[in-house]
Amino acid sequence: MRTTNYLVATLRETPSDAELISHQLMLRAGLIRKLASSAGLYSWLPTGLKVLRKVEAIVRDEMNKVGAQEMLMPMVQPADLWEESGRWQEYGDELLRLQDRHNREFCLGPTHEEVITAIIRDDVRSYKQLPCSFYQIQTKFRDERRPRFGVMRAREFLMKDAYSFHVDSDSLNETYEKMYQAYCNIFDRLGLTYRAVIADTGSIGGSASHEFHVLADSGEDAIAFSDGSDYAANVEKAETLAPQQSRPEASKSLEKVETPKMKSIEQLTKHLEVSANQTLKTLLVEGVTEEHPVVALCLRGDHELNTIKAEKHALVAAPLTMINDDKISQIAGCNSGSVGPVGLDIPVLVDRDASVMADFICGANETDYHFTGANWDRDANLMEVIDLRNIVEGDASPDGKGKLTIKRGIEVGHIFQLGSKYSESMGANVLNESGKAATLEMGCYGIGISRIVAAAIEQNHDDYGIIWPQAIAPFTVAIVPMNMKRSHRVKEAAEQLYQQLQENGVEVILDDRKERPGVMFADMELMGVPHRIVISDKGIDAGTYEYKHRRDNEKVDIEQQNVLNFIMEKLQTAQ
Amino acid sequence: MRTTNYLVATLRETPSDAELISHQLMLRAGLIRKLASSAGLYSWLPTGLKVLRKVEAIVRDEMNKVGAQEMLMPMVQPADLWEESGRWQEYGDELLRLQDRHNREFCLGPTHEEVITAIIRDDVRSYKQLPCSFYQIQTKFRDERRPRFGVMRAREFLMKDAYSFHVDSDSLNETYEKMYQAYCNIFDRLGLTYRAVIADTGSIGGSASHEFHVLADSGEDAIAFSDGSDYAANVEKAETLAPQQSRPEASKSLEKVETPKMKSIEQLTKHLEVSANQTLKTLLVEGVTEEHPVVALCLRGDHELNTIKAEKHALVAAPLTMINDDKISQIAGCNSGSVGPVGLDIPVLVDRDASVMADFICGANETDYHFTGANWDRDANLMEVIDLRNIVEGDASPDGKGKLTIKRGIEVGHIFQLGSKYSESMGANVLNESGKAATLEMGCYGIGISRIVAAAIEQNHDDYGIIWPQAIAPFTVAIVPMNMKRSHRVKEAAEQLYQQLQENGVEVILDDRKERPGVMFADMELMGVPHRIVISDKGIDAGTYEYKHRRDNEKVDIEQQNVLNFIMEKLQTAQ
Repeated sequence: MRTTNYLVATLRETPSDAELISHQLMLRAGLIRKLASSAGLYSWLPTGLKVLRKVEAIVRDEMNKVGAQEMLMPMVQPADLWEESGRWQEYGDELLRLQDRHNREFCLGPTHEEVITAIIRDDVRSYKQLPCSFYQIQTKFRDERRPRFGVMRAREFLMKDAYSFHVDSDSLNETYEKMYQAYCNIFDRLGLTYRAVIADTGSIGGSASHEFHVLADSGEDAIAFSDGSDYAANVEKAETLAPQQSRPEASKSLEKVETPKMKSIEQLTKHLEVSANQTLKTLLVEGVTEEHPVVALCLRGDHELNTIKAEKHALVAAPLTMINDDKISQIAGCNSGSVGPVGLDIPVLVDRDASVMADFICGANETDYHFTGANWDRDANLMEVIDLRNIVEGDASPDGKGKLTIKRGIEVGHIFQLGSKYSESMGANVLNESGKAATLEMGCYGIGISRIVAAAIEQNHDDYGIIWPQAIAPFTVAIVPMNMKRSHRVKEAAEQLYQQLQENGVEVILDDRKERPGVMFADMELMGVPHRIVISDKGIDAGTYEYKHRRDNEKVDIEQQNVLNFIMEKLQTAQ
Repeated sequence: MRTTNYLVATLRETPSDAELISHQLMLRAGLIRKLASSAGLYSWLPTGLKVLRKVEAIVRDEMNKVGAQEMLMPMVQPADLWEESGRWQEYGDELLRLQDRHNREFCLGPTHEEVITAIIRDDVRSYKQLPCSFYQIQTKFRDERRPRFGVMRAREFLMKDAYSFHVDSDSLNETYEKMYQAYCNIFDRLGLTYRAVIADTGSIGGSASHEFHVLADSGEDAIAFSDGSDYAANVEKAETLAPQQSRPEASKSLEKVETPKMKSIEQLTKHLEVSANQTLKTLLVEGVTEEHPVVALCLRGDHELNTIKAEKHALVAAPLTMINDDKISQIAGCNSGSVGPVGLDIPVLVDRDASVMADFICGANETDYHFTGANWDRDANLMEVIDLRNIVEGDASPDGKGKLTIKRGIEVGHIFQLGSKYSESMGANVLNESGKAATLEMGCYGIGISRIVAAAIEQNHDDYGIIWPQAIAPFTVAIVPMNMKRSHRVKEAAEQLYQQLQENGVEVILDDRKERPGVMFADMELMGVPHRIVISDKGIDAGTYEYKHRRDNEKVDIEQQNVLNFIMEKLQTAQ
């Protein structure tokens, strides 16, 4: 490509409404444009689309390799299908509903479980056709309340969504494993640093789920991962191991101390001159049974409650609901700052780490008083020990290997064992080996293609612009000729190299705009072209071209006659 | 691909709601499925998508070759942009309008003139960046009143739309010519019989427009084309040449004859025992000026009025409107069956062929009476001679070369010189060479990608199913092994050939389903795979495989060791 025949569309100024670095750089490098005044709607300019298509091609290739079959489903979907699955009512405002000219109800598809299930229930009738997997790479729409961060959280976006169908859960597991591996291959090939993270299966149910996160400081999610194994999980999801040490013997006696107007752990530790890990915090939440309308949750003072973990307990109401001050006073006889387990006549669920404390400080169930020297069993009943807290940096990895580190990630993929959620409500059965109707088991596997482009930039940029991993660079080589307007030699040399590279199938951009060198360098750096060749009269005099990789600072002079081989080798070996 | 790992999805029965053969075959061959009860919404199953992607790839390649740059614009478009161009009000019910969660107005884009013009007005500022062309291959939506014929007239469909921008009309002409040629290349490569047809520029204005039609008996449009040149035009648009013979001298005298209750040319010719080409029909239509509120149009009795041509005359109101019986009686003093030009005191516009008639029969402006032996000038005023009729088969080609034939066509492409329609209303200017603001000239170039798939089938099928042109076949070679279940030799031979073909980059399908031969043959024929190899024990005994091309009746035995070369050569040479 020649820049004179190409919409370079770089911008010098950083657009004022772009907060995130990838959003800024995608606008500045001429990858995308916002559609008029419409938040969350973007056009992909030629440079952006080249990157998008490369991501798409890698995803497609890996899907084909695991035997998934590509199809293409409509973007506009009828309400009846969503009523079959029950999601027409369930799905929130992100589902954009619309009516056609005959006032029939439709939606713009944010996902295609209903459509694929309807197809498969008609066209797959026997276990002999199973397992089978289908995918599409398609524009989706989600009516985000507050679209932002460019294509990272846009309303219209490109996704790969895949669905697998099985006669039983063993088969689902097997395909799930293959898909997991295909996702790893995809992110490896994209040249991105990522983690496969154990995810919460949430309200959909289903047995297994992993998110794939590209690591970047700006990521929305906190991920805990081990420095000694592959273990990685969303911070909310990561399990804390039972402490290795057992509970020390009680060595102090229970004493009540005055703690006037102290309601926080911070105030308490300051006042009593102790550290937070010697204190116990007690939270009263709504129970789920009539017998136990209120339940106490106890954690070490320096730990944070993990609501997802708490909600999983059979006695605890979900969503987790703290009881109000009046009720606290009824149950514990004090305000919320002085609640403690001693003498409390309700179920007391204790976090693993809190359960091995001895001689701890806790509320005395009397406003403005705490106990010191409290001990489990002797002073307070401990109904059950469970995992109740968020993990913290340095915790042992749940798989027993290494310690946990916390980093931020951008979710770009999600794989999910759906089980029979859709096949059951929509009546998708096959005949199994014994000739009986069996409800299909399903998996679904998503990747945000357009989101990956933004995530790749978040992970790979510097002050000058984007630094593309070679596999998804819009161009892999830039030729920047100096003074091409006047120097016939430079022009000829540039044209020759351009032609040679093209003949070798290299995606090369020749900057033939006759701009000042500074402008050309800045544009090629902003656009993140990995390999750059500068051709100048001075170089030609010395028989050399100047080479620089976008990630490196130093420039190298390459003998003119070796330059083609040099670049071809670089393209083979570089990332 | 192996059929055991592939959604073959063929149907034996012809679906009852499919009228058109391509629609039937696309359903039966497992190319598409209708989305639940939603007319005009289709999912593309794996086989259909393979074809669609091949068409797409050829279109993309030819667009790239003429230097058009690919981009991707949003499907959902804001109302404000369409208000800028004035089309938010103008566009009919086919524009599906919708509201987002904040009640802002949007539409699903059936076309992207507004979006691309908005992008270019911001990002292209100087004549130095011109000319430039952009295209996208994207799902479009048109809320058809009565979607039908499968993907031929669907609501959601895949289109390539391209737009070019120019500093003046010379540059537009130049790109238009290139695009015209690119379109010819596309249809040549697709292996389809087509015609580029001069199209009516309609209400958009603009100076040139061509439609590209795939010829097929089921086509919606009638196309006239020359047997002696490249000339082709929509029947409505094709000009009729002035007759070569001049008007004969009058040889009969004007006589009034009784023609009781005869209102049609057919009744008249039967009664008077003359042929229709000796009669003249006179139609009274609304005029456009106050001076001439009614205008008479005269044609030979065997010719049909072309309303588009009539509407172009300065005196005739558009849309063309016949005046009612009361008014006819006022003007001509008779009913509509007896109107004629003799003594008529209104403008009389006469078709070229009607103008060279002599001694003709026409209405006598007296109910139930006609004249015989009527002659222009002597008996009736002839205000102006113009082209008023539809061409008929056998007419001379307007370019003077050969005669016209009429065939039916399916419109699959349309190229159009838009001029400044959008750039003017949306204020898209560039600085020209003299530094002054110049309004951009625009061209637009569409191809219906999904429609081409259906049109290709309309043109290429037989009683057994689809016959794909090789360039867009979902698979080019089918291997059909006989009795693979029991014969180890057959299985081994089939697997070996399958592997060899794959290694040579051939898109081969191996039917390893262990179905009866009849089922396998029927499926491969229905799906239209061009080359078929049958492997059987009997063949192996004789050292041969059986080959058959989908278009041929005869089968050929190929020596086992030559089969790979044989197929590779067939793939090189076949269409």
